[in-house]
Amino acid sequence: MPKVSNKGKQMPESPIRKLVPYSEIAKKKGHKVYHLNIGQPDIKTPDVALNAIKNNHIKVLEYSHSAGFESYRTKLSDYYKTHGLPVDVADIIITTGGSEALLFAMGSTMDQGDEIIIPEPFYANYNGFSTASGVNVVPVISTIDTGFALPPIADFEKLITPKTKAILICNPGNPTGYLYSKEEIMQLADIVKKHDLFLIADEVYREFIYDASESHFSVMNVPGLEDHAIMIDSVSKRYSMCGARIGCIVSKNKEVMAAAMKFAQARLSPPTFAQIASEAALDTPKSYFDEVITEYKDRRDTLIAELQKIEGVKVATPKGAFYCIAQLPIDNADDFAQWLLESYALENETVMVAPAAGFYSTPGVGLNEVRIAYVLKKEDLIRSVQILKEALKAYNNK
Amino acid sequence: MPKVSNKGKQMPESPIRKLVPYSEIAKKKGHKVYHLNIGQPDIKTPDVALNAIKNNHIKVLEYSHSAGFESYRTKLSDYYKTHGLPVDVADIIITTGGSEALLFAMGSTMDQGDEIIIPEPFYANYNGFSTASGVNVVPVISTIDTGFALPPIADFEKLITPKTKAILICNPGNPTGYLYSKEEIMQLADIVKKHDLFLIADEVYREFIYDASESHFSVMNVPGLEDHAIMIDSVSKRYSMCGARIGCIVSKNKEVMAAAMKFAQARLSPPTFAQIASEAALDTPKSYFDEVITEYKDRRDTLIAELQKIEGVKVATPKGAFYCIAQLPIDNADDFAQWLLESYALENETVMVAPAAGFYSTPGVGLNEVRIAYVLKKEDLIRSVQILKEALKAYNNK
Repeated sequence: MPKVSNKGKQMPESPIRKLVPYSEIAKKKGHKVYHLNIGQPDIKTPDVALNAIKNNHIKVLEYSHSAGFESYRTKLSDYYKTHGLPVDVADIIITTGGSEALLFAMGSTMDQGDEIIIPEPFYANYNGFSTASGVNVVPVISTIDTGFALPPIADFEKLITPKTKAILICNPGNPTGYLYSKEEIMQLADIVKKHDLFLIADEVYREFIYDASESHFSVMNVPGLEDHAIMIDSVSKRYSMCGARIGCIVSKNKEVMAAAMKFAQARLSPPTFAQIASEAALDTPKSYFDEVITEYKDRRDTLIAELQKIEGVKVATPKGAFYCIAQLPIDNADDFAQWLLESYALENETVMVAPAAGFYSTPGVGLNEVRIAYVLKKEDLIRSVQILKEALKAYNNK
Repeated sequence: MPKVSNKGKQMPESPIRKLVPYSEIAKKKGHKVYHLNIGQPDIKTPDVALNAIKNNHIKVLEYSHSAGFESYRTKLSDYYKTHGLPVDVADIIITTGGSEALLFAMGSTMDQGDEIIIPEPFYANYNGFSTASGVNVVPVISTIDTGFALPPIADFEKLITPKTKAILICNPGNPTGYLYSKEEIMQLADIVKKHDLFLIADEVYREFIYDASESHFSVMNVPGLEDHAIMIDSVSKRYSMCGARIGCIVSKNKEVMAAAMKFAQARLSPPTFAQIASEAALDTPKSYFDEVITEYKDRRDTLIAELQKIEGVKVATPKGAFYCIAQLPIDNADDFAQWLLESYALENETVMVAPAAGFYSTPGVGLNEVRIAYVLKKEDLIRSVQILKEALKAYNNK
């Protein structure tokens, strides 16, 4: 029998999705499962996007331009400019989700065996995209004790080798909710310029910032970083359109964009219906975002307050995105998360969390942490934390 | 300035799409361009698929299962079984186009520096997916003189090394239109079993076969090939839904599917709207296909008859798909194709063809060949060939 590749063996399972079979078992038992494990918002997609799909006049569902509809790129450039990001049409290639944008960014800048430095914990699929691209992830540890702030720049410099090609950040961070300050971004800009690296910034949660005192600072706003900065974006979270699978790669580095365009041409085009919805979504009224941010802020405050009431639980208050990392009074969050689905229920209800070890690249780190997404409505979050609290007692008294 | 990767440099430009800027120039001059270069059918997408989109009741556009809707996979398995292919639900992962299915197949079975044998000329993007996957393409030449029949098995055996992991075929073939016979498939099955390789078959044109005496024989129908066979499929051509970007990878090899599933999880899910359309498309009435096949057969017969009237043009009659390779009385089809757009027009009309060199991996082969897609209506095909005929005269008298 022919063998699968080493790459295929090394591809990590998604820590967010690998427990799905256990949640299916729980549901078949009649248990309600609160999904704290996945960043799938329950927020309604803007009507303007959904209506554009319903009212489409397509007769032949054709390929689009490999870089995406020109009309969409033009409108998206306007959107960025309105939001203070100097992004021209030529700086944008529309991708099939932020996922594909990351693959294009890695493929365009890194070869087999090259290294990418990523502050951990980080979005688990960065491991998958790196493995798929033959790239080695070099983690630099940020800790719950500092609220997952940027590690000291000296920690980055120690890790830079001739193989290092890029630093990748997620800002605001999934899974930490950490928002990098302008100063931190400028420090990263200095180091990538000094060592001639790319700075890839996954900014898909840009709008999800909850404190009036905080604001987002994009890598696209750093003067002199034009050849180094690559921004990853997506409609998934901004418009609660995860299923669209539309994102983009943005850079002013012409060589990077020319290379990315060849990857884009190979896969022909991003999905047409989803582009129609995404283009229309740009007309979403500001009131939609105001409501959404108010709702998420309320959820965040509720979740963090409830979690802090549980003895032995430690949590860093997220400033953005809609996740937090919680340290639990257990040894093995993988085992606990599976047990929650397989063996536990409080009045026929249980919760699904994402074990955080999958968000670290360093073995043995984060074993007692979970990622919790606050994408459920307030009452459900309160109930979820109540279940979690009772479950922790039961688990530790097993 | 940080440098793009070697992979990014090596990624081939699409021979189908690289002339797009020249066609835009031609169009800006007011010239009508007949697109013979791209397999974008003008056939109407089935109403049942388009209506499913218009009538969708989505409120939150969510991620789907990473393997695609379970309902869609179930219905697709039924579809295959009805068409004589023993494909179970567990054998299917829905992908973002056949493109992604090929990337998953390569990633799951091949590592950096591994080799894949492909009869050439082949679908140009196989080069792109191979480069993206770090895989080396080893071509085995089929020629216009034999109508692009399967090269002798001895030619394959000569090319097999310890690095060889798979043979990839497209059946019916893009760009050749060649349909492999059952005997040819059985020969390939024997060789992959003997050398413990995978046989990856891109069967996205399965329904497009034009002669009553011919029928399609799938790799899924070869007894004992279960662990070796990987089928690539797509809705793009079958339902004229190229813009959906929905395909699938199919195999009974559990390890391959487990590896492919990890690639699928990393990119979260295939596009939701497009899955709705694709699932609904399975209810397309048989009459739709009867009309489509009749139409394409007529187009094929027209195109080939017209091309054969031009002195110095050689063409192999395609048995399936909707392409043919034509040898032209010129030295350099790249130059000719660009000239057609930049410098030629017959009564303000010109044609766009795909230079065939991009469909070969062996340098210097196919330089005087072009791929012509017969996706336009009969009158347009006749007119296109007329333009091509006059253009050839003008080009050779420059």
